[in-house]
This record gives sequence, C-alpha cells and structure tokens, in this order.
Amino acid sequence: ALAAPAIAQSMPKVTWRCSSGFPKALDTIYGAAEVFADAVAEATDGNFNIQVFAAGEIVGALEGADAVTNGTIEMAHTASYYFWGKDPTFAFGTGVPFGLNQRMTNGWMYEGGGLDLLNKFYAKQNMICYPAGNTGAQMGGWFRKEINSVEDMQGLKMRIGGFGGRIIEKVGVVPQGLPGGDIYPALEKGTIDAAEFVGPYDDQKLGFNKVAPYFYYPGWWEGGVALMNMINLDKWNELPSAYKGVVKNASALANSVMMARYDTLNPIALKELAASGTQLRPYSQDILEACFDAAQETYAEIGAENADFKEIHDSYMGYRRDSYLWFQLSEYNFDTFLMLQQRAGKL
Amino acid sequence: ALAAPAIAQSMPKVTWRCSSGFPKALDTIYGAAEVFADAVAEATDGNFNIQVFAAGEIVGALEGADAVTNGTIEMAHTASYYFWGKDPTFAFGTGVPFGLNQRMTNGWMYEGGGLDLLNKFYAKQNMICYPAGNTGAQMGGWFRKEINSVEDMQGLKMRIGGFGGRIIEKVGVVPQGLPGGDIYPALEKGTIDAAEFVGPYDDQKLGFNKVAPYFYYPGWWEGGVALMNMINLDKWNELPSAYKGVVKNASALANSVMMARYDTLNPIALKELAASGTQLRPYSQDILEACFDAAQETYAEIGAENADFKEIHDSYMGYRRDSYLWFQLSEYNFDTFLMLQQRAGKL
Repeated sequence: ALAAPAIAQSMPKVTWRCSSGFPKALDTIYGAAEVFADAVAEATDGNFNIQVFAAGEIVGALEGADAVTNGTIEMAHTASYYFWGKDPTFAFGTGVPFGLNQRMTNGWMYEGGGLDLLNKFYAKQNMICYPAGNTGAQMGGWFRKEINSVEDMQGLKMRIGGFGGRIIEKVGVVPQGLPGGDIYPALEKGTIDAAEFVGPYDDQKLGFNKVAPYFYYPGWWEGGVALMNMINLDKWNELPSAYKGVVKNASALANSVMMARYDTLNPIALKELAASGTQLRPYSQDILEACFDAAQETYAEIGAENADFKEIHDSYMGYRRDSYLWFQLSEYNFDTFLMLQQRAGKL
Repeated sequence: ALAAPAIAQSMPKVTWRCSSGFPKALDTIYGAAEVFADAVAEATDGNFNIQVFAAGEIVGALEGADAVTNGTIEMAHTASYYFWGKDPTFAFGTGVPFGLNQRMTNGWMYEGGGLDLLNKFYAKQNMICYPAGNTGAQMGGWFRKEINSVEDMQGLKMRIGGFGGRIIEKVGVVPQGLPGGDIYPALEKGTIDAAEFVGPYDDQKLGFNKVAPYFYYPGWWEGGVALMNMINLDKWNELPSAYKGVVKNASALANSVMMARYDTLNPIALKELAASGTQLRPYSQDILEACFDAAQETYAEIGAENADFKEIHDSYMGYRRDSYLWFQLSEYNFDTFLMLQQRAGKL
C-alpha cells in the first residue's frame, strides 16, 4: 500500500470513533470522553470529529484495548487496568493499589517520566495514550456488616475487580467479578457480602446504600484512578501534527474537568447518603497493613517475571516515595488545619 | 470603526504578546507560560504564535492587569492576586489565605461555577481569564529564629506580599514588601526576621537556607496558588472560535504541567535542604488559629463594602466547606496511611 499522502489542508476532515469503557449513565466518567471530544471539535472548527460511544455500543468495555490495537476503532477512553489480565503492566496507566494519588499521578505522568515509560509499553500494543480523567481516591466499598479486623474479612464475598481483587484475596476475601448492574440484587439477597464501585456520586445512583449500611474508606486499591485516551498508533501517525497537539491539550482538559466534576458532585451525594442513614467507617489499621503487605508481595512476584512491569513499577513507586516526603508538610498540614476548622463548624 | 471582518482562513496568522509575571529564572512558573505558548503553537501549526516575555521585559509584573485591560499587550500569565490592591476581588483568581487547595481550586473553577463568576468580574476589567498553572500549597517561610506562639510573632519583620501581609499584620507581624532579589541580603543582615517566597525548589535557588535555618509550614496564605492567563477581551473576541478552543485547552495543559513540575522538583530540593541543615517546623495551632480568625474578619470587612468580592467569596467558601467534608474521608486517609508507611521506611 502507498503511504498516506501529505495533507495539504491545515484542518482536514477526520472522523474517529472513541469507545468509552463506561455506560452513559456515568455522566462523570463517560462525560469526560464527551468533554474531550467537544474540546477537539471546538479547537478544529468541527473538522476533527470524535464520535463517542458507550461501552457495548460498538465495542465491549473489556475489548477496548484489543479493538484499539487492531484498529477496529481509532481510540478508547477507558481504564487501562481493565486490561491487566493481558499484561499486568497495563495497570500503571490507571494506577495500582496503594499507588499514587491523583495529583501524584499527574506529576509522575507529565513531569516524572511516567507517560514516556507508559508509552514505551503501549507502543508494543500498537497504541499511544494520554491521561484524560481521574476519579481521585475512591471509596472502599459497601458492607452489609461491620468489619473491624482481618479476621472479619475471612471468607467474605466482595465484588471487587482486577488488581484489587487479586491482592485482597491474599488476606482472605473471596473476590467476585460482577458488572455494575448486577451488584445491587446480589448485595440485596446476600449472595455477596460487600461491593466496591466508585464513590458517593456514582454509587448513590446504583442504590447500594439501600441494601448495605456501611460505607468504608479509603479505597486503598484505587487511590487515584486515571482514565486514558488509548489511541491506535497507525491512526495517530496519520494525524496532521496540529491535530496531535489538539488531542494532547484536549486530553489535559478532560483530565482536569473529570476530577473537578467528581470533586463537585461527591460532597453533595455524601451529605445525602449520610442523611439517609449510611454509616461511614474507616478501614482499621491492621486491615490496611495486611493489604499493603499483600500488595508489595504481589508487585515483587509479578516484577520478577515481567520486565516491563518492573521498569514502570520502580519509576512509579520511586515517585510515590519522594512525593509523600513532600506532601506530608504543607499540603497535609494545610488540609488538616482546615478539616479541624470544619469539624469545629468554622468553615 | 468597522467591525473586524469574518476570517475566512481556518488557521490565520495571529501573533500575541504574553507578559509573564515572573522572571525566567523561575522555570516552574515562567515555564508554565512557555508550556502554554508551545501547546498553542503545536495545535495551530505555528499559525497562532504567542510570544512570552519575562516580567519587566515589556511590562512590569505589577502592571500586567492594566496592560491587558488597556490592550497594551494581548495577555499576561500571572498571579491574579498581584492586583488585589486595584480590587481585592482579583485575589480569588489565584486564591486567598486559608482558601481552596489546588484540587479544590480546579474543582471550583471548572465545575463549581467559579470560572464563570470570576469572568463576570474580569469582564469589568475588559479581560477574560483561564487557569493556567498552580504551585500547590506553598511553604510558610524562612525564619532566623524559631517562633512557637503568637507572642513570638509580635513586631516580627517578615517579607510577605499582598493579602497574606494584610492578614498577618492583624496578629502582630510587620509585613515587608521586597522583590525576590532583595530578600537574601535583607535576611542575611537581619533587616528582616523572616521571608516567604514559594517552596523548596524556588527558595533553594535564592539561597534562603544559608541565612535562615527554620523553614515553616504550611503557607496558610497560599494553600493552592493558581496562575491565570489574563486575556484582553477585545483581542479574545477577534479570535476565530477554533483558536479560543485551543487557548482553553492549552491553558488546561499548562495548569496541570506546572503543578506536576513543582510536585516533581520540590521533593528533590527538600531533601537537599534537609541535608544542608534546614530545620523544618510546623506553625503552632495557636498561630494558625489566630491567623484564620484574622482572615475571616478581613473577608467580612471587605465583603461588607464590595459586592463582587462578597459574591465570589461566598461561592468559593461554600465550595471549601463541602470539599473538606469529602476530602477528609478517602483522600485524607489514603494519604495518611501511606505517609505512615513512609515514616516506617516501607515505601
């Protein structure tokens, strides 16, 4: 085949299909793909038209990566860790248990060498990726009964996906894979004892508070969940360079706007949940420590046999180590002081 | 005069001048304007060319707002609170003492109605603004002697600018206005007792650690300092709509990249400062509370006589109240747990 001819027009007509990994009902995550597509359209007078499809409309959520690799679709807006079963290295594009929080994720990707490392890996999958959304630290799930120790977790059936499931299994939980729509009835009947999804705003829509009274935090397996624009590398290389710039910039806008949307909507939902009787509970220190140790063990096991995983893990975890050294000073103490003022009713 | 003709070309040649409020030596803040200009150039094949100038090259740092209002320059990349003397409402574009942290600032601006409210105010100054950078929570300054209580602050001469200066004056400090380059000799000679600037990375360059051993946190007057692209409204209205989109998207990229740069560089500088003998000290609770009360009092005083200030203040502070309700759960406990692991040497 001939190479694509050089494009003389500065704003050629280009149409791409973007499969979101999420249903339209999640206006936060699905909405970030729309924010991205709208920003691309505005910056190109509508000449670069990215059509967004919900999960399952053209490609299923778990087929997103393959469809991008094969060029069935030009791009997906999704959670990279959905594809950790293909290669656990995919997990770092979204974040791993006890990993970087939202701000550290951006720090590592944009300025800490993270995005370059990730794209070295993604290139092997015939794709290039840009961060385009974040949920922040998610909640730690809904429980029918209180859990106060690692003993209380033995044999507990919990809906929890991917990497978090593999790790929590090591401390005695029986992880269950269930699509979002199947969680409510399973929790209601007691087929499962617990379920994690996202946080107050998304979870409230699914009604989990009606069938499980205890809402735990933090979601240690999802401390800063980045969404990725995963783009087929051949389609990327065919883009005029201006459009590449537009995609990078619009991805950054979607990245910030999605986080902003969660941060704006979650407090409102949280107040409503609390008013409806939801009991907030922190995970105990011994549970968190057992899970942390299980995570470290898991990373060492995978890293021993997967060089891509190890290379990215070491960069990511090095960034985490330095970041927490710094964040514990001004950021943490500024927030702590204002949280104390809030509890004193002074905000 | 005739209205500007409709522009037929999709990517017309446009050249703008952007005055940074900072010297080139601050590669973090000044660098964010370059990130922005480069992103605009890339997305327009170089047809929209934004030339970045350091403070003082074409316009002084404190003349940025007037120069934009008058159209002397098309835009400035600067701290909105530099202009709080013209109208204290300007302060909210950057952040106010005990205000929103970096993530909350983005939440409020992008999705909490903040940017629309700000731009209603800025329109009166013939400008439109987009956030284009953040420093995160700054440090609380360098002190020649330890300060342990509000009594220790009485009569203390401290280099601190703008709004923070007005508030700290209420608790007994004598604020001093000094340009960045004059701080070191004043601190060395003891003409001043203390000085705040930004944080580890920027402050280390100026050598404050050599003349003041105590580095305090948090910088309660600067918990999340946003930088603004301030754009002359007439020039904005002349832009083709695609270029407006490009500016909005590129601003979002600069916003994230600047924060990422600080978060990447600050931990490295912090380690070097600690190794060189710098003593880290938290402000005592009584100092923070006295300053918090002084801030609340100041906002009430200004709000009573300035309707723009009051309208934006109420929206901004309402967002703060809801945000801290939410952040104290997953975000805070996730970070707390990992900070404890770090102190235990497990990261």
